[in-house]
Amino acid sequence: MPHIFSSRDLDFQLKEVLNVEELTAWPAFEGHDTETFDAMIETAAKMAEDLFQPHAAKADANEPTFDGKTVSMIPETKEALDAYVEAGFMGAGFAEEHGGLGLPTTITRAVGFIFNAANVGTSAYPFLTVGAGNLLAAHATEDQKERFLKPMVEGRWFGTMCLSEPQAGSSLADIRTRAEPQADSTYRLFGNKMWISGGEQELSENIVHLVLAKIPGGPAGVKGISLFIVPKRLVNDDGSVGERNDVKLAGLNHKMGYRGTTNTLLNFGEAGGAVGYLVGEANRGLAYMFHMMNEARIGVGMGAVSLGYTGYLHALDYARGRPQGRPLDGKDPTSPMVPIVEHADVKRMLLASKSYVEGGLALGLYASRLVDEEHFHPDAAKRAEATDLLDILTPIVKSWPSDYCLKANDIAIQVHGGYGYTRDYPVERLYRDNRLNPIHEGTKGIQGLDILGRKVPMNGGRSLKALVARMSDTISEAKSVASLKGYAATLEALIAKMGATTAALMQAMGTQGPGRALANASLYLDALGHITVGWIWLKQALVAEKALAAGASDKGFYEGKLAACRYFFTYELNTIPAQCDTLAMVDDTNVTMQDGWF
Amino acid sequence: MPHIFSSRDLDFQLKEVLNVEELTAWPAFEGHDTETFDAMIETAAKMAEDLFQPHAAKADANEPTFDGKTVSMIPETKEALDAYVEAGFMGAGFAEEHGGLGLPTTITRAVGFIFNAANVGTSAYPFLTVGAGNLLAAHATEDQKERFLKPMVEGRWFGTMCLSEPQAGSSLADIRTRAEPQADSTYRLFGNKMWISGGEQELSENIVHLVLAKIPGGPAGVKGISLFIVPKRLVNDDGSVGERNDVKLAGLNHKMGYRGTTNTLLNFGEAGGAVGYLVGEANRGLAYMFHMMNEARIGVGMGAVSLGYTGYLHALDYARGRPQGRPLDGKDPTSPMVPIVEHADVKRMLLASKSYVEGGLALGLYASRLVDEEHFHPDAAKRAEATDLLDILTPIVKSWPSDYCLKANDIAIQVHGGYGYTRDYPVERLYRDNRLNPIHEGTKGIQGLDILGRKVPMNGGRSLKALVARMSDTISEAKSVASLKGYAATLEALIAKMGATTAALMQAMGTQGPGRALANASLYLDALGHITVGWIWLKQALVAEKALAAGASDKGFYEGKLAACRYFFTYELNTIPAQCDTLAMVDDTNVTMQDGWF
Repeated sequence: MPHIFSSRDLDFQLKEVLNVEELTAWPAFEGHDTETFDAMIETAAKMAEDLFQPHAAKADANEPTFDGKTVSMIPETKEALDAYVEAGFMGAGFAEEHGGLGLPTTITRAVGFIFNAANVGTSAYPFLTVGAGNLLAAHATEDQKERFLKPMVEGRWFGTMCLSEPQAGSSLADIRTRAEPQADSTYRLFGNKMWISGGEQELSENIVHLVLAKIPGGPAGVKGISLFIVPKRLVNDDGSVGERNDVKLAGLNHKMGYRGTTNTLLNFGEAGGAVGYLVGEANRGLAYMFHMMNEARIGVGMGAVSLGYTGYLHALDYARGRPQGRPLDGKDPTSPMVPIVEHADVKRMLLASKSYVEGGLALGLYASRLVDEEHFHPDAAKRAEATDLLDILTPIVKSWPSDYCLKANDIAIQVHGGYGYTRDYPVERLYRDNRLNPIHEGTKGIQGLDILGRKVPMNGGRSLKALVARMSDTISEAKSVASLKGYAATLEALIAKMGATTAALMQAMGTQGPGRALANASLYLDALGHITVGWIWLKQALVAEKALAAGASDKGFYEGKLAACRYFFTYELNTIPAQCDTLAMVDDTNVTMQDGWF
Repeated sequence: MPHIFSSRDLDFQLKEVLNVEELTAWPAFEGHDTETFDAMIETAAKMAEDLFQPHAAKADANEPTFDGKTVSMIPETKEALDAYVEAGFMGAGFAEEHGGLGLPTTITRAVGFIFNAANVGTSAYPFLTVGAGNLLAAHATEDQKERFLKPMVEGRWFGTMCLSEPQAGSSLADIRTRAEPQADSTYRLFGNKMWISGGEQELSENIVHLVLAKIPGGPAGVKGISLFIVPKRLVNDDGSVGERNDVKLAGLNHKMGYRGTTNTLLNFGEAGGAVGYLVGEANRGLAYMFHMMNEARIGVGMGAVSLGYTGYLHALDYARGRPQGRPLDGKDPTSPMVPIVEHADVKRMLLASKSYVEGGLALGLYASRLVDEEHFHPDAAKRAEATDLLDILTPIVKSWPSDYCLKANDIAIQVHGGYGYTRDYPVERLYRDNRLNPIHEGTKGIQGLDILGRKVPMNGGRSLKALVARMSDTISEAKSVASLKGYAATLEALIAKMGATTAALMQAMGTQGPGRALANASLYLDALGHITVGWIWLKQALVAEKALAAGASDKGFYEGKLAACRYFFTYELNTIPAQCDTLAMVDDTNVTMQDGWF
């Protein structure tokens, strides 16, 4: 049962679309070459197939249990993660100064794409650890890095992010966990943290919790949030793991999917206070966390792509192997049945999925490359442009695949028919796993407010302008290719339509206030997301046309890219103008709806 | 934990929209009055709350098991069903001549709506039995009715439908089960039947399997299919249950949801042949089965409504009780949080759900009333019109709620945030239960082919014309109500657009053949479904406006109807013209896509 990912498509994205070789010319990546990248990806593919995918279904059926003292899970999870650490994947993206390999984010995201597709529940542990580690790398003191980050990069300790509380999910301003300063400049933390993935496990020697808490006397709301390191076990001066800190597992959450990953309610300070160490300055915790969270949001989007993509590949395989029915033109009951991939409705479903998952992958890797550009491009102007682009793209990269690659998982069930509804095939599990992604790291609604309320207006609209400029470059190029001219014109018209819609909403923001202007922010996010993916498809189509013109041998692959682009422009972008018109009305149906009318 | 259904809305649909009292004036229902109807619904509501809903989660977590001899399930299922039978629900819809109460389908569907919402897994057993029983009532001999139907009506025996086989799901032409005629005019059946819900259980004394099979030497394809009664246990001449027939449980399917209902692979004839009795004439089995299947398809749609509706009610309750965040206009972190039902994005999600589930309920009950009209309306012209309307509406009633009420379940998860992703709340289970509905009783793709390939062109387009005529009546009425004029105009324009699209597709059918013309049949079904539900909303809005004009006391209820109608016209029907335009292009993207390009 492979179907984890398409190495042909990943290769296409990295080399033909994103030209990762260019990165190796930058000083930051001078020690690398594309052979290193290929080797990482090949190793990841083999390990994902050998050690991650085989226990995905078992982990789903046997979720972790807690006997009041210890969390137990199937042994395959630890075996896979030990091998992952051993192969050096944990440190792959960390800078060499922190003990890592210093690989570009574009490559580590491609590696993550593979592991997530194979087994998202097991892969979550290292990905959470890398997220937490990146935060420490950016904001912790040298001493903190030595004590906490180093063992994480080495894969001996894992990390978590502790933001939400039972009463404060989307509303982080309302967290209650408090951090009392001590004479020795440490803190004692008291409070409950909810939805903490990897919050307890016996996979690593220690767990480094990064915890948002309020120092008493600080400002109200988000401006009074600070960030703390709170290890599960205290760390001795020599770096060895000491006695247990006052962090208690209060319960495991039992989820719809993603069952291999423990998800916990943690109580801090029940026995006198959990020892914590302030990261950076007091009251700046949310800003630090957002630094990490923006990358985590790209990670969520990429995770959604992984699950949708593998679902699509399973559906494709099933459709090719399942004979059922006959062509509509000239049905003859005595003729043999044809594989369902021959039926137009099944092709339509598979093409839709292809356009979602390959579009999502291209989008996610494009954003990942922008992360590299932002940090490491030798040209400062390019670094600044990458920041602008990431500002506007992050909510799209988080949300669009969470919706549409989830839809690919839904389609994969449908293509399998009754079999897809059984647990004998992986597609229903993949759906359940992926259903998390529109919820965590900022729900769809939060992403909508972020893009329309913050990212679009900030810096005088610079971010959206930067995105439109890049789209316009692609349009100019596509106008000179006969077969793509029509798409270029469509995209150009959509951008103009979206511009007018945005202007109407920004005007409403001034005249009618955010409550009215942002009422349909998540629909705005949908529309801009679809236009962005349309652009991403046009970029892929340009590469495909060039390859075909140059006489590429694997013609079918490129024809598939063109067909998926055509599908997306014909069947997905066709309704966007009407959606923009509705948004531009600044309609108040939702605002005026009253609780008592439901 | 109630939130099973809204008795106010059900009352509105039955009395204010569908005027069920009118039915009691027909000879067929002269023994009934609206008090009887109310009593049935009240009894159902109480029993659903007391005996069905309480074990829904437990049945999901403890699916039936098979030890090689007997199927075991949690005892609450049998307790609930015994009470259901005891209260007379099994026979409610059967004619008095068959031992039933002879209630209208409109009422039995309303009752089914309640039980399915409370616990779809347990409710499936009687609903399957009623479906099988209706088929026997229509096509079996008097002797067969006495021996097999009577104990089903009494609720002592349950029934199943055995259509699919492992190699023949959507493609019924390819079933291989064969029925060998015997000298005593019985048959012996040999073959395997897949996806048989209720195919094995210890809930009833016997199981009456209705089995599609081929008599050797008959025509190829669907024209050679016959229908047989094959009891699990043979029936003695005195009607008592005898020894086991040659029907063996070969395995239980382990499903994503609907786990309380056993779903089985049955082997017929492993030990020499399963005794079967031909129903009606040989080779006419599929036609008989379709008689039942059309009603079953309405049942599937109504089941989807049930699950979506209860999910919506749970989401609404959660949204009212969950404080999180503050209004966007004038955020003050020291002010108290507001319930999330106050946030526009949450209101948007809930309004969308309301428009889906109340629209779905209105649609399903409208179709159920048509079933009563078709069978029992005193006016023959009305009976014929009801048949025409049901022809075109059945695929819509099956598919639209299966898609959109499922979407309401998806939204219910989203409204709950992280909590919705846990098994501590029912919404993820309701989603999993409802995910079956786009698959069984004819997948979405099959429904698309049925409507565009068969129902639209048949009888010179009479069915679609009948539907448009009823829509036009509503439009005329709405034009005279100031607040509804705009919707009337929108609907009128949509009907014209859909008419042009249909004409383009019918022309393509003639010139380019079904393969091309039907390639996007399921998108056609989507568009016509949305227009139909728009009409259903306009009908409800008319009733609401009248009630408000008459000074109704529960103003909020009617305002809610108007708001949901407004939502549906503004945010759901806005993209339909673009979708119709795309359909009218008779685009060949999907048709020309090649397997090798995926």
